[in-house]
Amino acid sequence: MALRYDQTVPLARVLASYHNLAKPFKRYQTQPVWRGESPQKGRYREFLQCDADIVGASSPLADAEILNLVLNIYQNLGLNITIKINDRINFEGLEKKYVAAIDKLEKIGESGVLSEMVQKGMVEKEAQEALKTLQNKPLTANLQQILDHLKQMGTDMEKIKYEPTLARGLDYYTGMIFETVAEGSTGSICSGGRWDNLIGNFTGQNLPAVGFGLGFDRTVEVLKEQGILLETSSSASVLVTIFSPTYLANSLKVAEKLRANNINTELWLDADSKLDKQLKYADQKSIPYVVIIGPDEATSGKIALKDLTLKSQVLLSFPEVVDKLSNSR
Amino acid sequence: MALRYDQTVPLARVLASYHNLAKPFKRYQTQPVWRGESPQKGRYREFLQCDADIVGASSPLADAEILNLVLNIYQNLGLNITIKINDRINFEGLEKKYVAAIDKLEKIGESGVLSEMVQKGMVEKEAQEALKTLQNKPLTANLQQILDHLKQMGTDMEKIKYEPTLARGLDYYTGMIFETVAEGSTGSICSGGRWDNLIGNFTGQNLPAVGFGLGFDRTVEVLKEQGILLETSSSASVLVTIFSPTYLANSLKVAEKLRANNINTELWLDADSKLDKQLKYADQKSIPYVVIIGPDEATSGKIALKDLTLKSQVLLSFPEVVDKLSNSR
Repeated sequence: MALRYDQTVPLARVLASYHNLAKPFKRYQTQPVWRGESPQKGRYREFLQCDADIVGASSPLADAEILNLVLNIYQNLGLNITIKINDRINFEGLEKKYVAAIDKLEKIGESGVLSEMVQKGMVEKEAQEALKTLQNKPLTANLQQILDHLKQMGTDMEKIKYEPTLARGLDYYTGMIFETVAEGSTGSICSGGRWDNLIGNFTGQNLPAVGFGLGFDRTVEVLKEQGILLETSSSASVLVTIFSPTYLANSLKVAEKLRANNINTELWLDADSKLDKQLKYADQKSIPYVVIIGPDEATSGKIALKDLTLKSQVLLSFPEVVDKLSNSR
Repeated sequence: MALRYDQTVPLARVLASYHNLAKPFKRYQTQPVWRGESPQKGRYREFLQCDADIVGASSPLADAEILNLVLNIYQNLGLNITIKINDRINFEGLEKKYVAAIDKLEKIGESGVLSEMVQKGMVEKEAQEALKTLQNKPLTANLQQILDHLKQMGTDMEKIKYEPTLARGLDYYTGMIFETVAEGSTGSICSGGRWDNLIGNFTGQNLPAVGFGLGFDRTVEVLKEQGILLETSSSASVLVTIFSPTYLANSLKVAEKLRANNINTELWLDADSKLDKQLKYADQKSIPYVVIIGPDEATSGKIALKDLTLKSQVLLSFPEVVDKLSNSR
């Protein structure tokens, strides 16, 4: 038995099996994947990976479309991000072991990178020169073209930052590469690039590809940190209480009608509980409102709506209750 | 390493670990689970299970709430279903091996059930009597109460059918049990019931529970069979073509504006392709509309919208295009 460790190899196998898929072939895929990593915050053994790729398009327009998609996703989530981009061609002529050292620049600093390069066999002066040359590399024609397309799409170009020392996984990407960082947080939450050779290994047929993997769990962690995603102990807007067995039917009817009006409604589930117990439960679950239908309410055809935050109670008609609750969340 | 085979034992473990969760504790959970079954249609080794349970409520009102939820889910999906219900108390005094035989009634018929009961040790006449007695058992007080609550909630009672020979898994449920069948299809797509003893095995603390597991894959299969869920080769409403490199920027801008207007838009990804190739792609992917912006359109500020089904083409303003495409799907 084996556990899926990515969604890219499965994609390559699909393309190897179905030769006549219309190209460019685009797909997104969201599934759990597994890694043997040590678990920590936002880093689990099992995690949800959201991939999107375009296969069969070698134009920089496809790269721009992928970056534009990442920007749109995070804009829709309300998260302020920066995408760091680079081009693999910048590392041409530099041995993999040195590129791996340079990729650690942010973690271990320049002196750390240089000493690792020296340790791996480069003369110190050469290492300094190689790093400096890399750091000063101008935008490649390919990246310039991608950025031009993004501008034409109306992208906020401040969200994109050229970083000539960014390397990422070394056996995989062939052109543009990128990482996404969120404001006020460290580590990449979405990364990818162009990978033109992998599918060919499976299919024999050469198929260019560009895409990304978005870390769902890490993205959720950041959304929580930024207070964009709130953790509440209940998603219900209101608890419909049961006054006594006599008024049970009234409560059931009102609960169903509230749900039909798209109010997230919790119903108390015991006809014999004291009202105090029900109110305590709503409080414990942070449910903001409580509906009470007792003898007075049943006679008047009105509903008592208790606001647990303000500790106030009003007598309302059903449409007034719907109105109040619709505007409360 | 072990793969998750259900979501009930994990739920029981959560309740064993967190004693002070407010009760009733309700949760839903959607995750892949794995079974060693032979794969067939709607029956995979890995499948998506959607569970919902209420823990800590022993009242028949909780059972009614769970059934009501199942009815609402399938009503929202537009699927015509029947829920078969029974009460475990109906099998009291009957050995498990005989109940297992009776549970096969729909599959192997009365004669099949009787011969299995005889094979397992019962005298033929007794087996006939036991089966007949069971088939004629009236609704239990518990089921009657649950049905009364459903009526009070406004449920369409024709969707629920009492079936005193329904047994389900034998080591698990303690009260009401149910299975959901879809019109025009066989096999249960959602099943559950009351399981009051399982959590106690983990916690020591006795906690009643009622809930269900909905088979996502089987439900999707039925939705496809009934033509409710359509499989298309593309979800895009329109392909924005690229007339030539000169008009690329116009196309990119229009594609982005269409997306900003919630139109599912595909963009052609090569500035040098012939229009014919682009139209062929749209056709292959069943994309119904194509946008063309060439020299005439760029000059007039209009957009050519081609309807690939009707093979017609009109020149429209941007808002007219949005209007047309918004109403087309």
